Amino acid sequence: MAEQIRIAIAGHGNLGRGLEAAIAKNPDMSLVGIYSRRPPEQIKPQDAATPVYEIAALKDHTDAIDVLILCGGSKEDLPQQGPEYAALYNTVDSFDTHARIPDYFATVDEPAKANNRTALISAGWDPGMFSINRVIGEALLPDGATYTFWGDGLSQGHSDAVRRVPGVAGAVQYTRPVKEAVDQVRSGARPTLTTREKHKRECFVVLEEGADANKVREAIVTMPHYFDEYDTTVNFITAEELARDHHAMVHGGFVIRSGNTSPANTQVIEYALRLGSNPEFTSSVLVAYARAVYRLNKMGQYGAVTVFDVAPGLLSPKSAAELRAELL
Amino acid sequence: MAEQIRIAIAGHGNLGRGLEAAIAKNPDMSLVGIYSRRPPEQIKPQDAATPVYEIAALKDHTDAIDVLILCGGSKEDLPQQGPEYAALYNTVDSFDTHARIPDYFATVDEPAKANNRTALISAGWDPGMFSINRVIGEALLPDGATYTFWGDGLSQGHSDAVRRVPGVAGAVQYTRPVKEAVDQVRSGARPTLTTREKHKRECFVVLEEGADANKVREAIVTMPHYFDEYDTTVNFITAEELARDHHAMVHGGFVIRSGNTSPANTQVIEYALRLGSNPEFTSSVLVAYARAVYRLNKMGQYGAVTVFDVAPGLLSPKSAAELRAELL
Repeated sequence: MAEQIRIAIAGHGNLGRGLEAAIAKNPDMSLVGIYSRRPPEQIKPQDAATPVYEIAALKDHTDAIDVLILCGGSKEDLPQQGPEYAALYNTVDSFDTHARIPDYFATVDEPAKANNRTALISAGWDPGMFSINRVIGEALLPDGATYTFWGDGLSQGHSDAVRRVPGVAGAVQYTRPVKEAVDQVRSGARPTLTTREKHKRECFVVLEEGADANKVREAIVTMPHYFDEYDTTVNFITAEELARDHHAMVHGGFVIRSGNTSPANTQVIEYALRLGSNPEFTSSVLVAYARAVYRLNKMGQYGAVTVFDVAPGLLSPKSAAELRAELL
Repeated sequence: MAEQIRIAIAGHGNLGRGLEAAIAKNPDMSLVGIYSRRPPEQIKPQDAATPVYEIAALKDHTDAIDVLILCGGSKEDLPQQGPEYAALYNTVDSFDTHARIPDYFATVDEPAKANNRTALISAGWDPGMFSINRVIGEALLPDGATYTFWGDGLSQGHSDAVRRVPGVAGAVQYTRPVKEAVDQVRSGARPTLTTREKHKRECFVVLEEGADANKVREAIVTMPHYFDEYDTTVNFITAEELARDHHAMVHGGFVIRSGNTSPANTQVIEYALRLGSNPEFTSSVLVAYARAVYRLNKMGQYGAVTVFDVAPGLLSPKSAAELRAELL
């Protein structure tokens, strides 16, 4: 057994619970602490032996943790936690507001560099594994086009938006790729597709007592940015059906790059994910990147990095020689 | 425009011609020479301005070439050329005898390190892109199983084997994944599959005048190692049909990793290639890795390396900041 990598978690929502499960699947890692803004007695770790601390304790534990995984949200938590903890720890996070990544990178890079820490931002599957496949696809087939489809999957942000509509007691929203668009892209045809042509949206809604179904439907399908550019179906169900049939956090999607290497020859590359649990898969990605961050830091690569900066071999617990012999 | 990377090609078969096409698609690269064992006047480059040299001239051109791409075969050419040219140039090759990779790596590593060169071995799609997906899949889902399927595709080695059967005037062989096996694997079921259950083989054969079709069929389907472990179909066609319908060097396949992140949740990752031209796609991969090798050498990473050692961002002509802003 190689040295153990000591991992800690900041935050204990869906992602934090997924991380507990993911770390347990990796024998070269130990979960040395869960840090939360909630009082420690309210946190129930999956392994009762896992220490739980108030998040303020992180200022004193720098010698006990090799990599700190930040589970906060991209809107409120990470813009503050990312730079703060990158000054103290090697970190991994799943910052996923695509448009703000350059700014966030800069705010994390500075404290990490100043303190010889390595901070990997925006890991997960998108941004993350999908991003890697967008970059490699474009590099291999420069004369081509890239398409990202999401779904079938439960979108947390869109489900929240439906729940805010007056008259809605509960709801989930699924994003689904449009089959005709996917088939065209898979053929190598490189179509130009509108937002509406790529994805459709399907809502399952529980009405409040006395709410008007038609009004609720209209408020959903016309909602700017979230639904107005899509074909949206609204299904009304009971609270029992919602609880019974729609609790799984399934998600996935695919990145397709098609291109021509010569006028006669079309090539198609497809990377697809079918996820039984979105947060558990995201957690598994964060844990593999925690291993890479630990190694990059030992190699002296300080500052902020992304999945684009990590060689595949660094993600594996196996040595370079083992990987060449077994998996090349 | 960034600096131009000066690429040369050793060998001018299918792969060498694919490289010419691939380099032409990458504005940051120039093809500065084609080197061949054949007399230069027998080589017809796609761009008539491309210089052609006898391969012996490589001993004198070390200042004029940034990366030399070796197009020789894994059996005869590369075991000799790999170490020889890694002492003189940064190199990329597609050595694909999986079982001999560790030995080959060692013989290339030593001269490359001794002369501050970077030599990337075994690039292409398998070994290559498929290998990367085997490593990442295993790292993300340690509690899982990996399956590699090849095809539908034309196998050069198996076609050659059929052509050696007495009575065969011409032939091609297609490798096809067995649909039932693929469906099981995609479901996340992690089946144990025999060789016969994973792939089937289909041959299209032109008989020599007077040859006995039944004897030829029997000789093919019982051929040890190549066909005896598979369900093989032999179709007899005319020379005209062979030339008309079976000249495309189509290939492809997929790597599927399925695993559980918790007892309730199965995750499936699939990487798939559908290639209109196997040699042209392989060439495109080699060219992207030539860019990475050029950069690794400038960064001081000397010796033999593989696709496992190359961060995705190094494959792209775009800067790290551009990649973060556009593709993360």
